[in-house]
Amino acid sequence: MRCEVVAIGTELLLGQITDTNSSWIGEQLALVGIDSLFQTKVGDNLDRIVDTIELALSRSDAVICCGGLGPTQDDLTRTALAAVMGVPLVADEAMEEHIIGLFSGRGRPMPANNLRQAERPEGAEFIEQMPGTAPGLLCPVRRPGPDGTDRELVVYAVPGVPWEMREMVLGTVLGDLQRRAGITAVIRSRTLRTWGESESGLAERLAGRIDHLDGTGNPTIAFLASGIEGLKVRLTAKAPTEAEAESLLAAEEAEVRSLLGDLVFGVDDDTMESVVLDGLRRAGLTLAVAESLTGGMVGSRLCDVSGVSEVFRGGVVSYASDVKYEVLGVPEGPVVTTAAAASMAEGVRRLLGADVGIAATGVAGPAEQEGRPAGTVCLAVVSDPVGGGEPVVDTLELRLPGGRRQVREFTVITLLGLLRRHLLDRSA
Amino acid sequence: MRCEVVAIGTELLLGQITDTNSSWIGEQLALVGIDSLFQTKVGDNLDRIVDTIELALSRSDAVICCGGLGPTQDDLTRTALAAVMGVPLVADEAMEEHIIGLFSGRGRPMPANNLRQAERPEGAEFIEQMPGTAPGLLCPVRRPGPDGTDRELVVYAVPGVPWEMREMVLGTVLGDLQRRAGITAVIRSRTLRTWGESESGLAERLAGRIDHLDGTGNPTIAFLASGIEGLKVRLTAKAPTEAEAESLLAAEEAEVRSLLGDLVFGVDDDTMESVVLDGLRRAGLTLAVAESLTGGMVGSRLCDVSGVSEVFRGGVVSYASDVKYEVLGVPEGPVVTTAAAASMAEGVRRLLGADVGIAATGVAGPAEQEGRPAGTVCLAVVSDPVGGGEPVVDTLELRLPGGRRQVREFTVITLLGLLRRHLLDRSA
Repeated sequence: MRCEVVAIGTELLLGQITDTNSSWIGEQLALVGIDSLFQTKVGDNLDRIVDTIELALSRSDAVICCGGLGPTQDDLTRTALAAVMGVPLVADEAMEEHIIGLFSGRGRPMPANNLRQAERPEGAEFIEQMPGTAPGLLCPVRRPGPDGTDRELVVYAVPGVPWEMREMVLGTVLGDLQRRAGITAVIRSRTLRTWGESESGLAERLAGRIDHLDGTGNPTIAFLASGIEGLKVRLTAKAPTEAEAESLLAAEEAEVRSLLGDLVFGVDDDTMESVVLDGLRRAGLTLAVAESLTGGMVGSRLCDVSGVSEVFRGGVVSYASDVKYEVLGVPEGPVVTTAAAASMAEGVRRLLGADVGIAATGVAGPAEQEGRPAGTVCLAVVSDPVGGGEPVVDTLELRLPGGRRQVREFTVITLLGLLRRHLLDRSA
Repeated sequence: MRCEVVAIGTELLLGQITDTNSSWIGEQLALVGIDSLFQTKVGDNLDRIVDTIELALSRSDAVICCGGLGPTQDDLTRTALAAVMGVPLVADEAMEEHIIGLFSGRGRPMPANNLRQAERPEGAEFIEQMPGTAPGLLCPVRRPGPDGTDRELVVYAVPGVPWEMREMVLGTVLGDLQRRAGITAVIRSRTLRTWGESESGLAERLAGRIDHLDGTGNPTIAFLASGIEGLKVRLTAKAPTEAEAESLLAAEEAEVRSLLGDLVFGVDDDTMESVVLDGLRRAGLTLAVAESLTGGMVGSRLCDVSGVSEVFRGGVVSYASDVKYEVLGVPEGPVVTTAAAASMAEGVRRLLGADVGIAATGVAGPAEQEGRPAGTVCLAVVSDPVGGGEPVVDTLELRLPGGRRQVREFTVITLLGLLRRHLLDRSA
């Protein structure tokens, strides 16, 4: 089964918008075992859209068109699909009522143009999911095959707005494609997020398991790089039912976790910040952050998570050295040291009345500082031990590669990773 | 003149990497007046790469291939181009020596595979720019035209690594395409960055000027949205020489600035943060930041600019209300008010010994706070006036749309914009 993706819109060709939809769809197709051999961008031109869809149908079994479903004259996907199917566009009364209802429900006047969105090629169906005002389409097409008999092909049309597109692809398109391909199995995947080990290191730890799975072919394990945010290990399982696929995944996750231990920090949509905030919340601890080279990026990432206010007290951005001395009580002297980082962490948790303090100081570059090269970074985490006693301090010194932005981003994830490990040790 | 873009690589189809190259190339082609009607992604498969290039040559005059120029067996672009040209691949001795020299200069052993990169289709030229280890190619191709005589076509091959690709496209490809298209004019553009006015508002202010330019067609004015970072006004001029094009742009910039006044905050690569940091530096002022809902994002953006340490003292992230009261001296009471923002700004500049204080407080959402809905944001900027006297305080209250991330990002740019205006007023 082959499925091409056609992204429609002159703004895509002009580079005003980058087409990320076809990448995302390509990934989803691969996950369910459908090949996507070509992906094409074409502008808002009827003949060229029709030609592009026809070409795709001549070499694949299915086509997903993204975009061109809006209400304006530029939106030509519906018309193009009617031409490909060789049928007229018909107004769909039920959809007209639905769209009118959407607008009146929002108390907004409906431009008359919007009724164009209720048109469909005769014989096409609307896609059930409709998160916006643009309905998606499922268009059956027949073309003669190499042996003279008709091939049953299909063209889907989904909006260019990514979240609308995703809901339709996940809700209808992938399942319909699998059914047509005779793929009766349910395919599910789960992504384990790891931090602190290289790809070859992970591969070594998992080598025996991967060899074992190669024998059965199900589930499978794949590594995905995820920039500076660590490596992802994707588990994919195939089974007759969703429950069986999930149960295979759960068993495989347990196997992989037993081999990787606490290198695994989360699953699927977890982020390092959501994981440490959960850890703090479970332990009933509050957090304060002292930042130098990162300038507030640690706090900013934490505040991306909603509900952070239960845990996060705030922070001090001590960019100038004398702010470190005067506000955070760091002893005067060099500030790119683990001792200075530890003083910053202790200072900020005292100043802000938090249980845990974390700190980053270092040289973002391009110039060196205190004779230390760009990329030198010192981190600290401090908290009181369970049951009382002297504060426990973890520190780390690193030499990071790359430019200013990269050094700062790597500092943030590394500091959050150090905090995660500190919390694990604390609760051990 | 039509030029298609073919992005080569299975990882693009699988969504492991998003193809941003063809968007960027599409934008560059549009700027120099060349149409790009189709852009295609194809995997690492020789027949499909050849078919895709042939199809592109059948409907366009030129093709830019990105990717597939590396040293491994998967890198098939050179072989595909030899097939399209109907010639053998030949080893280029000068390029072999160059590549060997690159590796020995870096003190690294050269894998034997890398010499595959010194091969070129007979009759093809290497592109002069070669920022990495993969040479680009310029391949003349002939195909019969509709009138029976040969059409002179061209295929360029550039690496998939974006910065290598960009250097070759800007250095060789665009100029060669313009020459082939008989475009002798030099085309240059300049982008004015604006903040504080809608697209229709800008269009209204510039309507007379745009009408006037429509008569001459040179220079031209175009609006480009730039997300929450304001609107860009792009001026494009065509002239026989670079000096004349630049002089047309300079004159047009002066005209547009006279109509837009200080809505224009910068040019080309300027950002709001680089502009306010320059303003502070020129005025000899230092800055401190107090942040609540943004959690450190204002400081983090400022620290993206190198050399910020001359100006930026640091900040306090007062996420919890009692941190606002105790650390910044905000009077106890509601904290989502312009008065609280002003106290935060005054408090942080006093605590950190800075000349100028800025502050943001508000409700990031999703929950409301103090009975105020998500998206309510209060901002303040405070500094002492030139020549002394009572501090000057500017405040602003906003109701921002969107989710948590969007509210926070809009808060940052708006606060920096308020600081810019405060500095303009101060020096007026």
